[in-house]
Amino acid sequence: MSEDFKCLSCDKANYKLIEKAKNEKIETVWDRAEAMQPQCGFGEMGLCCTNCSMGPCRIVKVSEDGPKKGICGADEDTIAARNLARSIAAGSSAHSDHGRDIAHALYNAAKNPESGYKVKNPEKLISLAKEWGISTENLDIKDIAAKVAETALQEFGKPFGHLRFVDRAPEDRIDIWKKMNVVPRAIDRDIVEVLHSTHIGCDADYRNIMVAATRAALSDGWGGSMIGTELSDILFGVPEPHEIEANLGVFKEDEVNLVIHGHEPTLSEAILVAVNDPELVELAKKQGAEGINLVGMCCTGNEIAMRHGIPMAGNFFQQELAIITGAVDAMVVDVQCIMPALSQVAKCYHTKLITTSPKAKIPGAIHMQFNEEEAIESAKKIVREAVSNFKNRRGNILIPQEKSKGFVGYSNEAIINALDGVANSVAHPMGTVKPLADAIKSGVLRGAAAIVGCNNHKVLHDKGHEELAKELIKNDVLVVTTGCGAYACIKEGLMSKEATKFCGKGLATVCELVKIPPVLHMGSCVDISRILLLLSELAKFMNVDIKDLPAAGAAPEWMSEKALSIGTYVVASGVYTMLGVAPQVTGSENLTRFLTDDIKDIYGGCFDIEANPQKAAEKIIDHIEKKRKSLNI
Amino acid sequence: MSEDFKCLSCDKANYKLIEKAKNEKIETVWDRAEAMQPQCGFGEMGLCCTNCSMGPCRIVKVSEDGPKKGICGADEDTIAARNLARSIAAGSSAHSDHGRDIAHALYNAAKNPESGYKVKNPEKLISLAKEWGISTENLDIKDIAAKVAETALQEFGKPFGHLRFVDRAPEDRIDIWKKMNVVPRAIDRDIVEVLHSTHIGCDADYRNIMVAATRAALSDGWGGSMIGTELSDILFGVPEPHEIEANLGVFKEDEVNLVIHGHEPTLSEAILVAVNDPELVELAKKQGAEGINLVGMCCTGNEIAMRHGIPMAGNFFQQELAIITGAVDAMVVDVQCIMPALSQVAKCYHTKLITTSPKAKIPGAIHMQFNEEEAIESAKKIVREAVSNFKNRRGNILIPQEKSKGFVGYSNEAIINALDGVANSVAHPMGTVKPLADAIKSGVLRGAAAIVGCNNHKVLHDKGHEELAKELIKNDVLVVTTGCGAYACIKEGLMSKEATKFCGKGLATVCELVKIPPVLHMGSCVDISRILLLLSELAKFMNVDIKDLPAAGAAPEWMSEKALSIGTYVVASGVYTMLGVAPQVTGSENLTRFLTDDIKDIYGGCFDIEANPQKAAEKIIDHIEKKRKSLNI
Repeated sequence: MSEDFKCLSCDKANYKLIEKAKNEKIETVWDRAEAMQPQCGFGEMGLCCTNCSMGPCRIVKVSEDGPKKGICGADEDTIAARNLARSIAAGSSAHSDHGRDIAHALYNAAKNPESGYKVKNPEKLISLAKEWGISTENLDIKDIAAKVAETALQEFGKPFGHLRFVDRAPEDRIDIWKKMNVVPRAIDRDIVEVLHSTHIGCDADYRNIMVAATRAALSDGWGGSMIGTELSDILFGVPEPHEIEANLGVFKEDEVNLVIHGHEPTLSEAILVAVNDPELVELAKKQGAEGINLVGMCCTGNEIAMRHGIPMAGNFFQQELAIITGAVDAMVVDVQCIMPALSQVAKCYHTKLITTSPKAKIPGAIHMQFNEEEAIESAKKIVREAVSNFKNRRGNILIPQEKSKGFVGYSNEAIINALDGVANSVAHPMGTVKPLADAIKSGVLRGAAAIVGCNNHKVLHDKGHEELAKELIKNDVLVVTTGCGAYACIKEGLMSKEATKFCGKGLATVCELVKIPPVLHMGSCVDISRILLLLSELAKFMNVDIKDLPAAGAAPEWMSEKALSIGTYVVASGVYTMLGVAPQVTGSENLTRFLTDDIKDIYGGCFDIEANPQKAAEKIIDHIEKKRKSLNI
Repeated sequence: MSEDFKCLSCDKANYKLIEKAKNEKIETVWDRAEAMQPQCGFGEMGLCCTNCSMGPCRIVKVSEDGPKKGICGADEDTIAARNLARSIAAGSSAHSDHGRDIAHALYNAAKNPESGYKVKNPEKLISLAKEWGISTENLDIKDIAAKVAETALQEFGKPFGHLRFVDRAPEDRIDIWKKMNVVPRAIDRDIVEVLHSTHIGCDADYRNIMVAATRAALSDGWGGSMIGTELSDILFGVPEPHEIEANLGVFKEDEVNLVIHGHEPTLSEAILVAVNDPELVELAKKQGAEGINLVGMCCTGNEIAMRHGIPMAGNFFQQELAIITGAVDAMVVDVQCIMPALSQVAKCYHTKLITTSPKAKIPGAIHMQFNEEEAIESAKKIVREAVSNFKNRRGNILIPQEKSKGFVGYSNEAIINALDGVANSVAHPMGTVKPLADAIKSGVLRGAAAIVGCNNHKVLHDKGHEELAKELIKNDVLVVTTGCGAYACIKEGLMSKEATKFCGKGLATVCELVKIPPVLHMGSCVDISRILLLLSELAKFMNVDIKDLPAAGAAPEWMSEKALSIGTYVVASGVYTMLGVAPQVTGSENLTRFLTDDIKDIYGGCFDIEANPQKAAEKIIDHIEKKRKSLNI
């Protein structure tokens, strides 16, 4: 019977749990998606405007009759562009607020011993201080950390100048941004300007609206996200390869299962310290458990997997199923991609759903505010709550057998060192991108592609990620992945030693030679900034612009506004980007053409839309081969 | 036949122009509003969510069937609150970006002589520098201006602390804000946090969503808007009473008619200098015109009316009609409330529609970017374009006879001085709020109400403003007004010397004694910060909190997101606030009850909704009398 759920997900671990949910009359995301059909065509096409209370206004495209303009006169191009721009701004806000929190945590590490945060990678801190022109003379690490944190925090609101990380891009790229007036200035300001320019009676020119939106997106990729990644590495360490287990089979019947779900490593790193606290381990044993089994979910799972080898339980569409196992004693969440539905599901079991961020409360959940100024103490309280719940388990636990093994934690430093044969020196990267460039130039690797993004009921769960990755590595395209895409790939075994069996000859040779999997786990969604930097370094090394590289991006199952921000900054950085789900702009032919075609002439990158992973792979390979030809390689 | 349009507007000046538009087959806002019927019920109730691409999701309320939750599990409360919060954030962004531009202009005045900007009110500058703890010793005005401008710009993005102007509120009010965790910190940050917390999988608790939204709104009222107002006064002068003409009858057949429309005085002040440039006046005469007739529209009209006595041509719903007169040689616009429809209307006449802001372009308009670093030169180019268009006028000009006279420009300084009998000293206010407090305490004035906001096809144009104002002044309630509400009141004669005929005996006595109209023009929509300050000063003087005052706010015809931000900061400042159009939240009983009732227990203020101006007045008067009773006055 479980096999009936093949139309919902590629992942067999899910089938029994979906069946269990059905039997226990528990609603999951797939039920709600079905109940929502048919979805509103105006919204799907981006033709509905609620930006003022004269509305809602809807543009009718399917017939001659019906309004072609909103009450203020905004047409389909204006409305679709405004909606898209606001989504991009919201996505940028999420990543950037994440970056801000990390910067505050670094500040706490410097100024506030009670926070429990400490700088784990002083070399990266000093290197960043130098890059930013911060004098480190006669300063201890804490003082440098404080200065770097303050400087990072100024990036959100400085009144003059442009973002510091912009200078990391290739010169040609910066020139394009200058010409287009999209050089990001201050992260929050650039986001706020999108809201202003999409207010009623402001910008009505879809191309100009996209200027503001692109600037806000670049403020994410080369701003908030990059600050998030760099400062996380400084605070918590640069990710290194770890072999880990993944999928819902990672739960243990005889241990306290604590799921950490959400995004910001400030919380998960503190929870990790807390679960290893002898007193709390002892408490777990007193409750009859063998220990505490910390597992991660969604991006926060990526963060602790790649720094500490913590198992990755599942991606966005598996969050309810985790609880439905009946084995989760607590699910601790912070921000982003936490389904509000979790509180209803948790109520059907003994699971405690614990919200921790003042920015994200859920009715029905327990709110235990995580205080970054006393991070470890705060985390211990939360873990205590989880541990004390073990005894309340009810029967009917179903932990699926399915779990996979794979290697995660390929920071740029790790990739460069692996390829350059400089082992075990992530903290002190000595390698260069030369071997990567050489492998690409020689054609052993045809190119590289990033597979990132979410899950979405509009495409079969995990299939977009897995099939696209397999097809690409079969054709000697190295794949890097983050976010929920990374979960799909590791679950399918694409990050294991054995994954070379899926590869073309060239890629297989490289993987075996330097001992990397063909699909490299690069982290959480903010870590797409790592990919930007890798591309940037590669382009500089090869003396070309990013747009000239045989590289592409793909978000086969994207659903969040963050993905729209990512897509936009990636395209504006010169990357051809394949989407498996169409953005809600198709009601405007002009905007659709702009995003998929005209924009190429401006930034070199563009969006493409293809739901079928095989066809998507063909298009990406075609793009890569064209770029190779242009480079004469 | 014109009289047929009574159902569209209260303003007779409009009837002939609406008729002209019909005859000439030109579409106006009323036509588009009619074509949009019926409007989407999901949107009207706030039950449609497009915050991720799994959606659009719609909650069905009208029947048992249909989804009660979005695909992520967000319910009606979450969805309605998220939509409202994002609208509030967008409104706050518009005002705050306006404030930022003024701060940059002040910076230019200090640093860049080519800008042409100069500090017009050094006393207010020095006073603000002192308030902000900026040392002025041995500094000239330019240096002080630079420091004040830089400090103001830091308010948008400073990483620590709270907004400086918060300290202007009564202590009890600040305590409430602290308790509720809504003390605004940095304007852009507070806005960005709303976007983040309303991202998929973040905040699902409608009350907590309203915490973030309220903080962002307070960042507008006590932040961006207040910076906008204060720095505008420093740069361009504190408004003083001027008798002006208003309504579409202000156009002149024999002069170049230049309409300045939008919001930011940085543009309008420069245009005003340019239209008085002898060379350009001479050019106008060469074209056969008698001169240049500069008139204002919407909030920018309020700005130059109250500082320079420039005529106010019309409010939001009259912008198309202005062009339809056939007498407008150029309409120069910057940001906010500019209907994109204008470019189509302008094409039917000789009118040049000139966009000037990089944040607001309109397809079909001429874009002449206004460069604040060379403001006057930039403005001259624009005026030259307008003047040179006079010769292209076609026949069929229809300038309505209707225009009214009234006094505008009641800044707090002007009100205080008028009431305290300290004439002609706006630049050096010497009076106190004592006379105002005495008049209220004695019962000669029962209280005060602000009538603010826009136009909206959902209520009869101008009627909500006019009738409410008349009913209130009849009952001895002093009315202050800004924005499009101010236009409705002056057009109806409520700002004239003769308006005492509409007043109750007490108010009439006060008005005659101190020579003010019963409806006081306080400026543009950012100037609602003036009202906050007046309330705050009055509360402090009377040793109570703002919520205890016999005062109320009303937005009878609001439509913009700015109005939602204003309403929210006003309510959170303790003011009972009457809306003539329901916010799009009615699909959530919880959120609706929160905004109209529960919130009273938190902030003292709340929203109320009443489309009928008579009934709205009754409720406001009832509220004022209750507050009087509580104060034992």
